[in-house]
Amino acid sequence: MTSERDIIRDLKNRFPVRTSVEVGIGDDGAVLRPGDKPVIVVTDMLLDGVHFDLSSASPELVGRKAVAVNLSDLAAMGCWPTAAFISIAVPKSIAATDTFISSLYDGMQALSDQFEFTIAGGDTNTWHGPFAINVCLTGSPTSAAPVLRSGAKPGDVLMVTGPLGGSLPSGHHLTFEPHLQLSKWLLQNTDVHAMMDISDGLSIDLHRMVEASGTGAILNADAIPISPHVDSGLSADQRLKHAMSDGEDFELLIAVSATDAKRLASQTEPHAFVRVGEVTESNDVLLKTGDNLTHLPADGWQHLSYSESR
Amino acid sequence: MTSERDIIRDLKNRFPVRTSVEVGIGDDGAVLRPGDKPVIVVTDMLLDGVHFDLSSASPELVGRKAVAVNLSDLAAMGCWPTAAFISIAVPKSIAATDTFISSLYDGMQALSDQFEFTIAGGDTNTWHGPFAINVCLTGSPTSAAPVLRSGAKPGDVLMVTGPLGGSLPSGHHLTFEPHLQLSKWLLQNTDVHAMMDISDGLSIDLHRMVEASGTGAILNADAIPISPHVDSGLSADQRLKHAMSDGEDFELLIAVSATDAKRLASQTEPHAFVRVGEVTESNDVLLKTGDNLTHLPADGWQHLSYSESR
Repeated sequence: MTSERDIIRDLKNRFPVRTSVEVGIGDDGAVLRPGDKPVIVVTDMLLDGVHFDLSSASPELVGRKAVAVNLSDLAAMGCWPTAAFISIAVPKSIAATDTFISSLYDGMQALSDQFEFTIAGGDTNTWHGPFAINVCLTGSPTSAAPVLRSGAKPGDVLMVTGPLGGSLPSGHHLTFEPHLQLSKWLLQNTDVHAMMDISDGLSIDLHRMVEASGTGAILNADAIPISPHVDSGLSADQRLKHAMSDGEDFELLIAVSATDAKRLASQTEPHAFVRVGEVTESNDVLLKTGDNLTHLPADGWQHLSYSESR
Repeated sequence: MTSERDIIRDLKNRFPVRTSVEVGIGDDGAVLRPGDKPVIVVTDMLLDGVHFDLSSASPELVGRKAVAVNLSDLAAMGCWPTAAFISIAVPKSIAATDTFISSLYDGMQALSDQFEFTIAGGDTNTWHGPFAINVCLTGSPTSAAPVLRSGAKPGDVLMVTGPLGGSLPSGHHLTFEPHLQLSKWLLQNTDVHAMMDISDGLSIDLHRMVEASGTGAILNADAIPISPHVDSGLSADQRLKHAMSDGEDFELLIAVSATDAKRLASQTEPHAFVRVGEVTESNDVLLKTGDNLTHLPADGWQHLSYSESR
């Protein structure tokens, strides 16, 4: 099968953007312009056995995650949620369907209460397949316009909002807090050039940002914050590998001017921002380890082969 | 399991409508008001073995149907599509994944070209379950405001836009033409009080319209147009039963004033509209057969027991 990256590129070429759609396929969300105000739309489908495992995760946590990953996409666009649309396919093999659906909605309701958006529609089905859920969220920008991943400029500093790696095995992917408040604060206090959430791993997602921006980047391996969720018994290289490629971190990756980066890096309130690299003019994405620069392939760190010398 | 009707009612009570959402759970779609113009959002999830069967239907027809049923919801709201968001879960057992996805999108592209909307985002996954697809569509009203199912008034005439029944066995559900143009024409030429599409069968869907409108209705059994897709070898009663309860007709059910109904009924261009009943003040939904009136239960004709005398 072609990679998701190729599929997205094909679809992008195949479906030209028409009237009233400002941004189509290729960012964390789409930007529609129905009238004087933009509407941002994000969507994610989550599947049992792929994005969660109902044999260990409660329906409540699964419902929560399905909404939270979409909230993270909105945060990455500098937006606040307005409405959610929930479609579910519930296995006929689940005995207590009503209880299952109710628990699922408990997890979603907690987030809709916290961030004050409306669950405004959806579709409920039963079938003989495993559990599947699709969430579509609409949002509006917290500042003048949504923040795209395409605005990074050479000389910008790349920062992340938290430590990376180990999200799936630790269960962090089920309980993480979507950075809506932080995103809002950032846009009120900083000129954010580009932003996205780290869902597939810093390595792949950084490539997406610089490709969209028409730039390159140098990532500083020594600066990448490694989550305590990453097994501390592993070697330093292995731990770094997990931090860069595990995915489902849902931290934000931002590109800001060097001046703004300096200011952000010096503070811990309301949040500590970590400087992980910089945006460059060339299209290369390089990893800096000590004084050594190596190419970071587009398909991510996980496909790199390690030489003994590293 | 609780009926979908009960689930929708529970969700409606549980999730109050918040700022910038004008219409939430309970109509064909939701109405958001982000700025000076409304945005209408509809969504439907379609599942292999439930809404189509990939062992007999081509991926192209499946992709087409998944978008078409959502277009029908927009037509029912008096809206025109602007953007589509497509999430798919593709079985790992499908050998030629790329070809499969490409064919699927061929079916969707035909409709996006025909009605000039943008496929603006989505999510592509593979898994060990059967094929699932979720489509979320945004739209804008073709007249001043979207048409809801809640606007029917006592004295209104109920009309349908085409014959009913037999859609699933005949394959009509895969190839039907969503009534976007007809809906647009209607709103330009008629004051439509209430409108919805017939997806679960006239019997259930009429109950939904009158419940939303706080009215009742009398349906004239002898006037209901029976589709040629319904087996002609069946008895007249059985054929009527199919017309009222098969579902997936995707014809429009409208409530208009008696004057407008008379005008619509007298014309065949651009379309023939069929008068099937009237809206009443009482909350009863009655079926008129000859001079005989019987209650039509909320869960539809299919659960009625027939006496020998009918």
